[in-house]
Amino acid sequence: MSEGAITAPAGFRAAAVAAGVKAEGRDLALLAADRECAAAAVFTTNRVQAAPVLVSREHLAAGRARAVVVNAGCANAATGEAGLADARETAALTARALGCRPSEVVVASTGVIGTRLPMDKLRAGIAAAAARLDRNAGGDAARAILTTDTRPKEARVTFATGGRTLSVGAMAKGAGMIAPNMATMLAFFTTDAAVEPRLLGRALRQAVGASLNRITVDGDTSTNDMAVVLASGAGGAGAIESEGRDFDALRAALEEAARRIAEMIVRDGEGATRVAEVRVEGARTAADADRIARVVAESPLVKTALHGGDPNWGRILAAVGRAGVELDVGRVDVFLGDVWVAERGAAREYDEPAAHRAMIADPVRIRVRLGEGEAAGWIWTCDLSRAYVDINAHYRS
Amino acid sequence: MSEGAITAPAGFRAAAVAAGVKAEGRDLALLAADRECAAAAVFTTNRVQAAPVLVSREHLAAGRARAVVVNAGCANAATGEAGLADARETAALTARALGCRPSEVVVASTGVIGTRLPMDKLRAGIAAAAARLDRNAGGDAARAILTTDTRPKEARVTFATGGRTLSVGAMAKGAGMIAPNMATMLAFFTTDAAVEPRLLGRALRQAVGASLNRITVDGDTSTNDMAVVLASGAGGAGAIESEGRDFDALRAALEEAARRIAEMIVRDGEGATRVAEVRVEGARTAADADRIARVVAESPLVKTALHGGDPNWGRILAAVGRAGVELDVGRVDVFLGDVWVAERGAAREYDEPAAHRAMIADPVRIRVRLGEGEAAGWIWTCDLSRAYVDINAHYRS
Repeated sequence: MSEGAITAPAGFRAAAVAAGVKAEGRDLALLAADRECAAAAVFTTNRVQAAPVLVSREHLAAGRARAVVVNAGCANAATGEAGLADARETAALTARALGCRPSEVVVASTGVIGTRLPMDKLRAGIAAAAARLDRNAGGDAARAILTTDTRPKEARVTFATGGRTLSVGAMAKGAGMIAPNMATMLAFFTTDAAVEPRLLGRALRQAVGASLNRITVDGDTSTNDMAVVLASGAGGAGAIESEGRDFDALRAALEEAARRIAEMIVRDGEGATRVAEVRVEGARTAADADRIARVVAESPLVKTALHGGDPNWGRILAAVGRAGVELDVGRVDVFLGDVWVAERGAAREYDEPAAHRAMIADPVRIRVRLGEGEAAGWIWTCDLSRAYVDINAHYRS
Repeated sequence: MSEGAITAPAGFRAAAVAAGVKAEGRDLALLAADRECAAAAVFTTNRVQAAPVLVSREHLAAGRARAVVVNAGCANAATGEAGLADARETAALTARALGCRPSEVVVASTGVIGTRLPMDKLRAGIAAAAARLDRNAGGDAARAILTTDTRPKEARVTFATGGRTLSVGAMAKGAGMIAPNMATMLAFFTTDAAVEPRLLGRALRQAVGASLNRITVDGDTSTNDMAVVLASGAGGAGAIESEGRDFDALRAALEEAARRIAEMIVRDGEGATRVAEVRVEGARTAADADRIARVVAESPLVKTALHGGDPNWGRILAAVGRAGVELDVGRVDVFLGDVWVAERGAAREYDEPAAHRAMIADPVRIRVRLGEGEAAGWIWTCDLSRAYVDINAHYRS
């Protein structure tokens, strides 16, 4: 049994079992709070939304939850009304096993799109998991939710509020950002802080906006994405009921946990051998900066150059130019690490070996200065390798 | 000497020489009309525009041209004021050799970004090419403009107007759509029709909109793209001065030539082993249909599935969902060839071997029916292979 991060905050237990959704290994994780928690979530923006996304959104509307049940191996996406009924039954089975209401259960699925959940297997698996809930099984749960990931993703961050040391625990899966057939990015956070659901949601959105929303592996967003936080209040500190120092401490801890998880996901990107931070400065708006950063980070030509360690700044400049943002190319500077490779939209003399070293650094730092304003944005990405093609060309075959 | 298509219409001669811009082989092509032609062009929408794009746009403003000079091996992009001066000098050298005005010369460059044109070599090369202009050297010109292309791209289409048989000739290069460091797609058309420049431009935009603007290899648009048409009027038919039957015949011939060239480009896409047509029907607007088709066609997950011949419709559906178009997923149908694989946004029973066969057909036909309206759109794409990564990871190294 592995202690894990998700059960580090007071008030949570977890379990992982082999329900048989996947051909082998543990594929069902249950996270249960001792009492009802304040809860919040963000979901995929894809218009194709899996059944568990639709059901969990409904269940979390009141800002309360008691448990999260996650299966790997089947995404329960593109399954129509039958899939919705399956997701609801999954919540009901979990609620019965835990003695709570179905609406207090968050359901999440990850795996192949277009196949139904094997409900018989889930029925037995949920009962078995509920019987094995343990304060020290967080690590097992973090492993049971993986699909193409090569390693579990966990983070634990402590923070002080109201004279108490509290913590945030996190676990996640995701190796394509996002691979729709192994759909996809799931992130779960716990905390023993006591906090209003509305404030908890605000903290989550801010944390995700600075972390999980700033990574890209292949630009494909999934049908199953969700990030969920449960706050047990079991840490013994007073309730956070407004913005202020305590809220900031919680928000910062959540953001740090999400940032670490996000970095783990991009480092474990399908076929990734190298990661890069693309930073855009001097934009008129943060949205402009983010947009340009994303176009650069998702350019197949930039990503293959990154794979080859090739300081090919022409591809970066060309990606900046096609991002659909109004700008004067004659003001654009490009840096690779500390090496200034393009000035005012044109080539400049630079130390080629130093530029090459910058392209194999960890992380590679690509910086674009627009000279249009004061806003900045950034995104993390990984390289595009032959292994990405291998992983994805024959996935279902 | 290879006769080629670009000099098939009356009134044009061509030449190709090894100017030494590239390490070996012919790298300079000259296309010259016997008399001043009506001319029109479309250029890259990238905000980073190479010097030859800026100069040619200026020269074509009056709708007249006499010659096109093209070099491979150096894109003359991101070269600042010095690069602009080089492009102007290239036009001036060509004009002097041909006895026309510099403003009658279209200049085009393709190759590495950020390096200066070797003007000494161009000076000698242009003089040599002008001395060798030949009615039968169109095929040589088509080969001299290539970079990463594995084969030349030529098309010839005849049409009847005013009791005469006229023709359209075309040559192009492009193997990434678009590879900014081997920037990029260049397409040249000639015709012996006599036509108003304004009408010629309209015909070119329509032809390109139905062909060259409907192919994608990697979604990267280049700094050097241009499609140029020169109409000599040497075919002996009356002038086309308004829309009508003659205009339609020219437009259709131009479109057919552009369509063939476009198909050749996507088939010669970097690392491509398979091509697909992505067709979106039942959209509210053609723009919606085109947008969804492009997102599907550029999804790395769809492209890797195409490479593997994997009928992974879940990835297609997920790409539809993230295209940013308002739609009801519960109405979306997906077909692979004739195989109906997803109905109303959900899995349906289908013949798996037939779906697999559809994914290895030539071309693969992916069809998405939205059920939102009557508009349709389409795009051609190719698969994403390990060879694409190999070609692009170490290009400059």
